[in-house]
Amino acid sequence: MLRWLILICWTPLLFAQGEEIRTLLAKSEAMWNRGDLAGFTSYYEDAPTTTFIGREVVRGGTKAILERYQRRYPNREAMGTLSFSEIEVRDLAPGVALASGKYDLARTAAGGGNASGRFTLVVRKTPAGWKIIHDHSS
Amino acid sequence: MLRWLILICWTPLLFAQGEEIRTLLAKSEAMWNRGDLAGFTSYYEDAPTTTFIGREVVRGGTKAILERYQRRYPNREAMGTLSFSEIEVRDLAPGVALASGKYDLARTAAGGGNASGRFTLVVRKTPAGWKIIHDHSS
Repeated sequence: MLRWLILICWTPLLFAQGEEIRTLLAKSEAMWNRGDLAGFTSYYEDAPTTTFIGREVVRGGTKAILERYQRRYPNREAMGTLSFSEIEVRDLAPGVALASGKYDLARTAAGGGNASGRFTLVVRKTPAGWKIIHDHSS
Repeated sequence: MLRWLILICWTPLLFAQGEEIRTLLAKSEAMWNRGDLAGFTSYYEDAPTTTFIGREVVRGGTKAILERYQRRYPNREAMGTLSFSEIEVRDLAPGVALASGKYDLARTAAGGGNASGRFTLVVRKTPAGWKIIHDHSS
């Protein structure tokens, strides 16, 4: 019975989740393309448990993740223009979702040239909105 | 009230999840090291929504994932000896967890030489036990 009650209560929430997470991705893409790395990393949960797996593993809050991005993208040219595509969002539970997709960076040769890869995000709904708690980018 | 009731009911389940997922990883590692790729891929959910992000993106059930592994690891020597380390498991919800860690493949030069990388798994408890619904390995 409890299971059904939960299901009935949560079904409308689950439908809304996917759209909210697509909005988060669109906003973070826009932040990047304005050169605002601090704004971009504000979509990560500022918690010691937050993890970022790239070439290196970064643990910690938004500060650690911001510093990682600043090391790899030291200036506007290295940042280039980011676009996300092939986005898929799967609801894992109310307030928890899995998002994956492709990223493309359009950059000048001086900026490092074009780059692309894939990401997996686990996002969690917090009082401050949806936040990334785990990022695996390759 | 419902929220508290859910929390009280689920807390013991959450404690058990981490251990169950570590067991899954130990079993899948053992399958690999016995050269049993079909057994290894049986830990993925056999569903069209299951995704594997590696160099390529594989969608579909265990058959598609098994074929991907068979292409990349065509014989026992290419499979080498697998070991997982730095495993972290985070509960996302009752019956859903995030596991990440490092993999090392000890191989002969003929097998392709040693290799290592990182993985992110999203696992879900199904009637047939815990199954991987998303794998991002790099």
